[in-house]
Amino acid sequence: MDIKYMHRALRLAKRGAGYTNPNPLVGAVLVRDDRIIGEGYHEAYGANHAEINAILHATEEVSGADLYVTLEPCSHYGKTPPCAQTILEKGIKRVIVAAEDPNPLVSGRGIAMLRENGVEVITGVLEKESRKLNEIFFKYITTGKPFCILKAAMSLDGKIATRTGDSQWITGECARRQVHLLRHRVACVMTGIGTVLSDDPQLTTRLPDKKGKDAVRVIVDSSARIPLSAKVLNVDSDAPAIVAVTEKAQDKKIRELERMGAKVICMPQTGNGVDLAFLMKKLGEEGLDSVLLEGGSTLNESALRQGIVDKVNFFIGPILIGGDTAKTAVGGRGVASLKDAYRLRNLCTQFFGRGIMIEGYLGTGEEAPCSQD
Amino acid sequence: MDIKYMHRALRLAKRGAGYTNPNPLVGAVLVRDDRIIGEGYHEAYGANHAEINAILHATEEVSGADLYVTLEPCSHYGKTPPCAQTILEKGIKRVIVAAEDPNPLVSGRGIAMLRENGVEVITGVLEKESRKLNEIFFKYITTGKPFCILKAAMSLDGKIATRTGDSQWITGECARRQVHLLRHRVACVMTGIGTVLSDDPQLTTRLPDKKGKDAVRVIVDSSARIPLSAKVLNVDSDAPAIVAVTEKAQDKKIRELERMGAKVICMPQTGNGVDLAFLMKKLGEEGLDSVLLEGGSTLNESALRQGIVDKVNFFIGPILIGGDTAKTAVGGRGVASLKDAYRLRNLCTQFFGRGIMIEGYLGTGEEAPCSQD
Repeated sequence: MDIKYMHRALRLAKRGAGYTNPNPLVGAVLVRDDRIIGEGYHEAYGANHAEINAILHATEEVSGADLYVTLEPCSHYGKTPPCAQTILEKGIKRVIVAAEDPNPLVSGRGIAMLRENGVEVITGVLEKESRKLNEIFFKYITTGKPFCILKAAMSLDGKIATRTGDSQWITGECARRQVHLLRHRVACVMTGIGTVLSDDPQLTTRLPDKKGKDAVRVIVDSSARIPLSAKVLNVDSDAPAIVAVTEKAQDKKIRELERMGAKVICMPQTGNGVDLAFLMKKLGEEGLDSVLLEGGSTLNESALRQGIVDKVNFFIGPILIGGDTAKTAVGGRGVASLKDAYRLRNLCTQFFGRGIMIEGYLGTGEEAPCSQD
Repeated sequence: MDIKYMHRALRLAKRGAGYTNPNPLVGAVLVRDDRIIGEGYHEAYGANHAEINAILHATEEVSGADLYVTLEPCSHYGKTPPCAQTILEKGIKRVIVAAEDPNPLVSGRGIAMLRENGVEVITGVLEKESRKLNEIFFKYITTGKPFCILKAAMSLDGKIATRTGDSQWITGECARRQVHLLRHRVACVMTGIGTVLSDDPQLTTRLPDKKGKDAVRVIVDSSARIPLSAKVLNVDSDAPAIVAVTEKAQDKKIRELERMGAKVICMPQTGNGVDLAFLMKKLGEEGLDSVLLEGGSTLNESALRQGIVDKVNFFIGPILIGGDTAKTAVGGRGVASLKDAYRLRNLCTQFFGRGIMIEGYLGTGEEAPCSQD
């Protein structure tokens, strides 16, 4: 067993980012005599699993080889036949697994099937790295709700715009490119009506070096105030727009939106605003496993208050803006007492150009490894 | 020449931090046959220079040895005789210098004196590191004004308190200890009357493992509203308090403050508030080479607007607070347009416990190396 092959498998897995949702990212490497004889990854939703691709791409007979795979091989018939069975049929001798399948219905079964049939199985090799890589999948498969990343672009003093609303651009080109990479990776991009009215963003994925995949555009707009001319409703994209309204929205406007091809979801109104937790559940039911929240000050605060945020990615431009009335990344009412503040764990930083991105996970649980991918 | 000895000299230099102001931090190492035969540093203002201490502590004859020194040896009679002359008298063969003396009146003279007398001199070895270590000295000796570090303790969303004013504690113990180390290193700690009235801080240096040196406490208080019972006026400390007022302050109150041992500086009132640039010049004239600005939202913004800030140290606690009305690290009016934002260069990060400190220098000039000391 050599950990370098699992590192290789993890790198391969990443290539599927953006294309496999709501499936996980998985990579596999076949090794014999300290040589890679085949490798593959899960390239797209519904396509071959990583193990099968590694076998198909093998340059020689695979029987007797070691298989490194970043997630437990499946044991059930889904879109494809069970990988554990193929592994047995091909005579693979040993399987090294990073993480077990988080799905409680199948977890451990693939490994058990292999062991019962005489295949040596080693588990937990770079497990944390594999779990981190698939944090979206792990959340979605176990809760049915999308993994939500709150992204903000702000000055070092926390402002997302000047007091007059000037916000283009606070962060540099490198940081903005990373945001487009995030959009490529997730199932949905979500923003509020305030941002649509003030900035009229497209929310599409624009990358310099590859096509990229657009995410579903979700607009939180309780009264359906969105202009029919808004770019999010009119961009040329394979991904649809979803407008999340409440009963305050007029039926006529809802029908107009639907005629334009937008999907309208009606959320309950709660005492504190719209019920974002309900919306997340609905998005999960649509098979959408992840949300990049690119909201303004108010929506960000609602999302935190309603507990839908899993992770924050704060891109900090190398500037100070100042101003008591300048909007900050998290506005609204905010907490009164520090003991009620939203706690972040496992902070880590990454430089983008002259700026910095700080990542943190909501909650105070177990510390996860800090990846720099 | 081996750079490791200069690294050693830089480490020695740091030991003087807090005790040498307004002199620089300097370390020196004597080397023969790849062995250290003596080392020393400038331990306190008015005490021996580093080179002299290295010679005094030498365990064998120093003639023919190499001397590594982090700053150019002096060539003039000050509180001590010129080091360049002692180096010549002791028969040192070669001198390796990190940075030249920044004082335009003497820069290069020590090196010239050595070279003219047959000593080989190598310059520029870890020069950036030495300049960074002495950024306070370099600013003060060339401008007569103190080097100003704006320190803030805030949540990741930029808040220095909740909307109700709860601020204890946003950052953890490691970060707060680092702030006390900063207080130990600088000549003055400065805050505004708002902070004195709301938090009644002591502004003394409290370190767990050494005594530490208190900085002069400077309170910006245009109307002299400070209560005579304020802790900053009553703590048991060798360092005095300075209250910076304007003509709005009543003479009677000024006399009361002076009777308590505080020094009162009267600043001009400008259109934008008090003239902090004037205050900095006055502090410089008192021989105070550095200011740690621990202000609130308003004073921080004034300081940035008036261009007195050289560096920011933002300690970020692993929390989000939210709130449109919660105070941020930089409040006041702020800039209207992003093109007028205060630019930071050379951002770097350092972890303190579960939080992060982001350091940056005001301005867009040359990038300096990012130290992690």
